[in-house]
Amino acid sequence: MLFSKVFIPILKNDPTEAKIKSHKLMLRLGMIKQSSAGIYSWLPLGFKVMKKIEDIVREEQNRIGAQEILMPTIQSSEIWKESGRYEDYGEEMLRIKDRQNREMLYGPTNEELITDIFRNSIKSYKSLPQLLYHIQWKFRDELRPRFGIMRCREFYMKDAYSFDISDDDALLSYNKFFLSYLRTFKRMELSAIPMAADTGPIGGNLSHEFIILADTGESKIYTDKRIFDVDSNLTTIEKNSLDKMRNDFEKFYSVTDEKFDQKIFENKVPEKYRIKTKGIEVGHIFYFGDKYSKPMNASVDFNGKKEFVKMGSYGVGVSRLVGAIIEAKYDEKNEIMKWPTSVSPYDCSVIPLLNKNDKSNLEKSMKIYNFLKNNKIDTILDDTYESISAKMKKFNLIGIPFQIIIGKKSDEETFEFKKIGEEPKKLKIEEIVKIIKNNK
Amino acid sequence: MLFSKVFIPILKNDPTEAKIKSHKLMLRLGMIKQSSAGIYSWLPLGFKVMKKIEDIVREEQNRIGAQEILMPTIQSSEIWKESGRYEDYGEEMLRIKDRQNREMLYGPTNEELITDIFRNSIKSYKSLPQLLYHIQWKFRDELRPRFGIMRCREFYMKDAYSFDISDDDALLSYNKFFLSYLRTFKRMELSAIPMAADTGPIGGNLSHEFIILADTGESKIYTDKRIFDVDSNLTTIEKNSLDKMRNDFEKFYSVTDEKFDQKIFENKVPEKYRIKTKGIEVGHIFYFGDKYSKPMNASVDFNGKKEFVKMGSYGVGVSRLVGAIIEAKYDEKNEIMKWPTSVSPYDCSVIPLLNKNDKSNLEKSMKIYNFLKNNKIDTILDDTYESISAKMKKFNLIGIPFQIIIGKKSDEETFEFKKIGEEPKKLKIEEIVKIIKNNK
Repeated sequence: MLFSKVFIPILKNDPTEAKIKSHKLMLRLGMIKQSSAGIYSWLPLGFKVMKKIEDIVREEQNRIGAQEILMPTIQSSEIWKESGRYEDYGEEMLRIKDRQNREMLYGPTNEELITDIFRNSIKSYKSLPQLLYHIQWKFRDELRPRFGIMRCREFYMKDAYSFDISDDDALLSYNKFFLSYLRTFKRMELSAIPMAADTGPIGGNLSHEFIILADTGESKIYTDKRIFDVDSNLTTIEKNSLDKMRNDFEKFYSVTDEKFDQKIFENKVPEKYRIKTKGIEVGHIFYFGDKYSKPMNASVDFNGKKEFVKMGSYGVGVSRLVGAIIEAKYDEKNEIMKWPTSVSPYDCSVIPLLNKNDKSNLEKSMKIYNFLKNNKIDTILDDTYESISAKMKKFNLIGIPFQIIIGKKSDEETFEFKKIGEEPKKLKIEEIVKIIKNNK
Repeated sequence: MLFSKVFIPILKNDPTEAKIKSHKLMLRLGMIKQSSAGIYSWLPLGFKVMKKIEDIVREEQNRIGAQEILMPTIQSSEIWKESGRYEDYGEEMLRIKDRQNREMLYGPTNEELITDIFRNSIKSYKSLPQLLYHIQWKFRDELRPRFGIMRCREFYMKDAYSFDISDDDALLSYNKFFLSYLRTFKRMELSAIPMAADTGPIGGNLSHEFIILADTGESKIYTDKRIFDVDSNLTTIEKNSLDKMRNDFEKFYSVTDEKFDQKIFENKVPEKYRIKTKGIEVGHIFYFGDKYSKPMNASVDFNGKKEFVKMGSYGVGVSRLVGAIIEAKYDEKNEIMKWPTSVSPYDCSVIPLLNKNDKSNLEKSMKIYNFLKNNKIDTILDDTYESISAKMKKFNLIGIPFQIIIGKKSDEETFEFKKIGEEPKKLKIEEIVKIIKNNK
């Protein structure tokens, strides 16, 4: 795209209403625009990043054999009355009356609806396990929405649900999602650490949050430095391999606030390895057995006997991840953002010094732009007449991982190429293409 | 996928509550499941089709230079009061009060919200034209939701909006979307005819509906047979080419009910070419100038003068298209559905006769399945022990365009391959792969 054509409404300065760096950067770059309290529109720059995150999440769900469906945003209150959560959920649930005066709600989560789908569809244990997921907008009517898309009201999530015949099988499903989350966050170049967590309103007795360390996070965490070195690269979807992975993590103390016990922490973690800090929750998995299947009568035939299915649920905050990645990758002091190549809005930027009276640099830039495009490298060319320093400042904020700078003295053969925030090199265009493709 | 693993809860018979064939087929095949009146969940078979439709719509929007954004589902009433539509919209608008007692609503359409985004972002006419679109869930609180996902309450749409400095420029944008719609529906193998239409609550004075003929449609249409032969294959995005395309269509009378005039119809259309029938609206485009930009003060600087931008809007019913394609392609009498290859849930089905005591056919089928998979052909293998005739009946309903049948007498070299509903041929697997790939 040409910068003059793309819809990226950039602000000159950080907006005053924003408190944390992801919120500031997203507003400043026109990635999002608030439409009302805690509700945002996603403009092209933000949308492209979120879409890439969504695709990674989807691929990793498919990879463990989960099947994609799509549940609606508006639900009937009936199923929530069946599970007993309609009254419990409190004011965060956006309650709605339709024109027939029926009690509806905007789904804050989907355990009831998926259980209803399951009980109407699956009759025999032979059809288990079933792993189903969807990626959909949810609404929680936060009293004080804040931090931009990090704690907003309408947000985009992947929610998966597993159905099994026994606790043992269900634990295998749980571990598959555990692995898929490690893979998902790794592809976004995030160190997301699994931490034993409270189950909250979802219920159950086994739960992990996946948390990335960040001072601006809202979760307090207590962990062991060594957990960052646990390697799951060779883990496969087989039971033994998954069990080993879980054991490798369980060796190290790693909990959120609600699960914290000072004594155990100090006992299990030598002082030099102790980490007490804050983090951002980007994923949360739960095992809750028959908490929903029993009241909602979701059972299967097991050799003539009726068995309530054992369920788990597994969430990833797709829209929140956009902010979480900025929190992790944005150097606010030097005003340099570094998107991981897997989720960057563009692969490469071409930043020329342009002069209205001399079109040669624009022509040269267009040539490079078209060459990259023909090589399937998604490129943005800054065809505006801003000064080169203003352009550099802008593109350091936008955070596209590779930059080609066409200055005064650039020749026809080699170009000034740099990884964002690093020193430039003079390279031929073919070498540049190779580097970008190898980093994709 | 293996049929035994995939989440396709098929019903034995047509559901009694469904009146039209798309609704019947979608419920019978477990493509969708109603969760409450006019609100559906999309199960894997239906979801896959809708996703492919969405991708085609997106590609054709991008191809004319439109940029994707994403607006939220929940909007504030404020902007609707600015445009004057808050009271006008009536009971189809789902009105919501949040916990702070603020008046919110579930967007039935997005002219106000996009105008608000535009006026906060674009200041100069030099940044025009802007073509922005999003693909999002919408809600219209229909008094009598019916016909499954064809007239439901929560539905998935692509909405695009154009912003220009003059009527002339705006007409060019209008024509770009006109072309993109012809291309979009053509890729789904639908004859969608543009018909001059009323503008309804959107407003303005220029509008076309894109309609496919179907007895079960809710739109009455009056047109000229010869309009089906208008060829836009060579039309490009350039002004002259687009003008020619529009002229080619304007030659033929083609209107919806509200625009119908018996006298003009009989005058312009020789009797043998007259068509009076029903159709399904799958797209609708509008030009409405400054209807929203003026009350909402969306203006740009045009050489020192403030000009209200000229806007159009352009909708495609993404979820409705799933039903519309079934209405067009399902032969209910013979119970054979034929998905266009571009949107079929799978590329190919492998349908073996299986015997619990003899695994040879299952092994042979798995080999074929894996070979197709390695060739990136998305295949479903029916590994159940139903009779071959039950399987054929089922797969004729599912409508995947290509079938490989492994019967009693199948040898190791050639396989019974058929286009759905046609006669089988004996072919080598490499030939089969070639045919499927050429038809993709």
